[in-house]
Amino acid sequence: MKLVPNALGRMVPEEVPELGRFEPYGGLWARLERGYEAPRLVPPLKGTSRRKDKLAENLEAAVRRSGLESGMTVSFHHHLRNGDALLPQVLGVCENLGIRNLTLAPSSLTDAHEAVADFVRRGVVRVIHTSGVRGEVGKAISRGELEVPVVIHSHGGRARAIEEGSISIDVAFLAAPACDPQGNLTGALGPTGCGSLGYAQTDARYARHVVAVTDNLVPQPLAHVSIPQYLVDQVVVTESLGDPKKIATGAARITRNPVDLRIAEDAFRVIRASGLLENGVSFQVGAGGASLAVAQYVREYMKDKGIVGSFGCGGITGYMVQMLEEGLFKALYDVQSFDAAVRDSVAKNRNHIEIDQSWYANPLNRGCVVHDLDVVVLAALDVDVDFHVNVLTGHDGVLRGASGGHCDTAAGAKLSVVVLPSFRGGVPSVKDRVQTVVTPGESVDVVVTERGVCVNPRRPELAEAARGAGLKVVDIHDLKAQVERLTGVPEPVAADTSRVVALVEYRDGTLLDSVFRVDC
Amino acid sequence: MKLVPNALGRMVPEEVPELGRFEPYGGLWARLERGYEAPRLVPPLKGTSRRKDKLAENLEAAVRRSGLESGMTVSFHHHLRNGDALLPQVLGVCENLGIRNLTLAPSSLTDAHEAVADFVRRGVVRVIHTSGVRGEVGKAISRGELEVPVVIHSHGGRARAIEEGSISIDVAFLAAPACDPQGNLTGALGPTGCGSLGYAQTDARYARHVVAVTDNLVPQPLAHVSIPQYLVDQVVVTESLGDPKKIATGAARITRNPVDLRIAEDAFRVIRASGLLENGVSFQVGAGGASLAVAQYVREYMKDKGIVGSFGCGGITGYMVQMLEEGLFKALYDVQSFDAAVRDSVAKNRNHIEIDQSWYANPLNRGCVVHDLDVVVLAALDVDVDFHVNVLTGHDGVLRGASGGHCDTAAGAKLSVVVLPSFRGGVPSVKDRVQTVVTPGESVDVVVTERGVCVNPRRPELAEAARGAGLKVVDIHDLKAQVERLTGVPEPVAADTSRVVALVEYRDGTLLDSVFRVDC
Repeated sequence: MKLVPNALGRMVPEEVPELGRFEPYGGLWARLERGYEAPRLVPPLKGTSRRKDKLAENLEAAVRRSGLESGMTVSFHHHLRNGDALLPQVLGVCENLGIRNLTLAPSSLTDAHEAVADFVRRGVVRVIHTSGVRGEVGKAISRGELEVPVVIHSHGGRARAIEEGSISIDVAFLAAPACDPQGNLTGALGPTGCGSLGYAQTDARYARHVVAVTDNLVPQPLAHVSIPQYLVDQVVVTESLGDPKKIATGAARITRNPVDLRIAEDAFRVIRASGLLENGVSFQVGAGGASLAVAQYVREYMKDKGIVGSFGCGGITGYMVQMLEEGLFKALYDVQSFDAAVRDSVAKNRNHIEIDQSWYANPLNRGCVVHDLDVVVLAALDVDVDFHVNVLTGHDGVLRGASGGHCDTAAGAKLSVVVLPSFRGGVPSVKDRVQTVVTPGESVDVVVTERGVCVNPRRPELAEAARGAGLKVVDIHDLKAQVERLTGVPEPVAADTSRVVALVEYRDGTLLDSVFRVDC
Repeated sequence: MKLVPNALGRMVPEEVPELGRFEPYGGLWARLERGYEAPRLVPPLKGTSRRKDKLAENLEAAVRRSGLESGMTVSFHHHLRNGDALLPQVLGVCENLGIRNLTLAPSSLTDAHEAVADFVRRGVVRVIHTSGVRGEVGKAISRGELEVPVVIHSHGGRARAIEEGSISIDVAFLAAPACDPQGNLTGALGPTGCGSLGYAQTDARYARHVVAVTDNLVPQPLAHVSIPQYLVDQVVVTESLGDPKKIATGAARITRNPVDLRIAEDAFRVIRASGLLENGVSFQVGAGGASLAVAQYVREYMKDKGIVGSFGCGGITGYMVQMLEEGLFKALYDVQSFDAAVRDSVAKNRNHIEIDQSWYANPLNRGCVVHDLDVVVLAALDVDVDFHVNVLTGHDGVLRGASGGHCDTAAGAKLSVVVLPSFRGGVPSVKDRVQTVVTPGESVDVVVTERGVCVNPRRPELAEAARGAGLKVVDIHDLKAQVERLTGVPEPVAADTSRVVALVEYRDGTLLDSVFRVDC
């Protein structure tokens, strides 16, 4: 596979067997501003009989009736997170039916999907498109167990790929926490309720065949519909979609780690200094470590100053729901709900709006939510002196993360703040060059660590405002040197650059980076 | 234009200049069961810049920016009913800009659209696709003032036509009673609030360019979204979308006309006799004359017997909302809201579900709501001894009605009941042959008049049940003879069968009938 350098100097292929041609990344908006246009591919209209019995006897019968064959593409959503039992169950059925060489296109892979590594080894799965990979699957891919490189997409990039057909779904399997016999379904209700079905909505609209699988069949009409019946071909009842405790977890706790709290407070001070924390502010923050703590500072400040924001968006935590219910936001745009309180809010609050993946972040539609964001706070595995961010490969070069909405929100937000400790487990978080670029530095405005705040040189006015607010602003090269005096300089990853195991797509479909084979 | 007989013996063209080829009607499900398949046409994905200013200065600027040119297709929704000011306003702007020969594809034309006749005469409009026509426009078409025959579609047929591209919308203009600057919009809120935007949802998803026009711009985020921002290209603020009094009217009153009440009671008795009025019953009824009174009898019966239905659907009246709020239905599927109480219920009741035109009645998707209907009660202008129903042309042959969901619900429901007085203004309602077939007799189970109940011979068990319930069941030929003894036999319409002025499409796109030129 011949590699060429992209605009970041990263080596990427222009043509990949079985996947086709790719364009190298050329800048945040380069492809879009050139007037990129792709046909949108949706399944044909089909004649139907009058009343349809959509209920399939069991999953095997549904797979047979779907027309799924070896070499086709199947999709899943990951709204059931670490509790999902459906994806491995369906692959097991496929294997029993002798279906092989599938392209697996879930919105992401979680800890519940360790079995995928074995399905790869046994030839059931040949190609994978996903936002993230972890554990055994990440290792299997990193070792080169898949012949065809895995394609890593962002959430917005996935909507784009499905709509333009570069992911062309033959059969979508939708885990449906509540469903009626006609296929009207939602994730807001039911024992395995997960909240928003944002990713699944996109699959349902574009897949050639849609199978809803539910452990909670209710009589028609289901009174809260997230995906309407006319997008669903079959309904299958199964005993359980998964482990409710791992699906709708308790509310995420604010960290008590003093380093994280220090980072969070400084991140908040940067946001305040930016001048964006005014009436009408829109805001996204993740659930991990320092991120949620930033929300706490923001919330207290908004309450204190009487500020009313416009919307919160993204993966939604119970903390954001609390802010909605306190009137600090007028609405939440929810593409993925992180806990049980969020699920219940989707069912209850009209201004808690379930949005699909395209609405959330597709760069190629008529305006997605992330393009209206004021502030996003993002975690990272590591960053480099060019502000490029890696959220995908560990310091050993092994795949163990997810692209998610990282590059989508960073590109869209007026202020993108990356929060991370300056080192973890003795390994520095600021590198000369991150192993894998997931979010280009051009879209990252500031990196906040406990040792200081590094402002992207593209934003001199922000650096000045931060300094004016009493923050310790440091050059990212100096921060790196300072940390390396403590930790030493880590060895570069011993990757085999002759063997590409994964491709990192930017949201517009161009290639940001390649992930290479490592021993693991 | 060469005409051929279809399966009902009605003469229809197989090819129409500027409109292309048509297939003659072959039976209720013939085309679908043959495995009809059409590509679904959606606009391409397009590169966009980061943040878009969607706000256009005024309607003229929006039309210019939309790229609308002579000969293209524009669409509108008729949710503002007789109060709509937008359609004539947009056509006026087009005329000023020198845009001519437009194809006009509203979901329907109402009394607010009399000016369309003049736009036709002045060459601004050349082709019309609509569910209905009335008044001056109906006369202009009937006289032959349009060179190209007007295409009359049902609501389900329109969704099919738009999705398969036989109506290929270049620019959709959406009257938006509440809208934010990104184009998130709803009809459930605002001074010209109309309730559901079911028809507009289909336009927004398939048009190549979408202009939202609002008299109620709210800051992002609008907290109740019927059409999401990512389907909208431009937002225009106008002073008023129309006359609120003619948009959201007071609740329709139950008729006090003794003939209508007699018909309604007998229709109710037929429904009860059918055995369908049990727990889980689904029900649709219109707003006119006897129809709403049927709902009254049904409601009292359900309350009395403790029956809980599944859903009510269709154009929704305040009466159906009352039944929802009393717990007689579990949900309403609302494609069009008939009064202010309904609009407010859309905003308030989670189980009052706004459905799009395809979900409502498209025969070519994976299952529309009307296919799950148990009972529908429908009005008619006249019927014939073959149970064919005309809701389109008056006894003078002039276009003055609307296809609406008539043939969609009649085909889908287990029991379709047509209610009408046996004569009106001295003209009998039962003919040997209706002037225009809109709903084929095969899908009509029973015709209820004040002089007796005529059961379609295809339903002998229903006739028996009706007789068993003490209803006066009469042969439709006998009823016709009986009425004609009072009224005499009306003269046939003096239509010029050499000149087709309108085509009546069945919901599957085949041609049911032709409307011919008359002097008027």
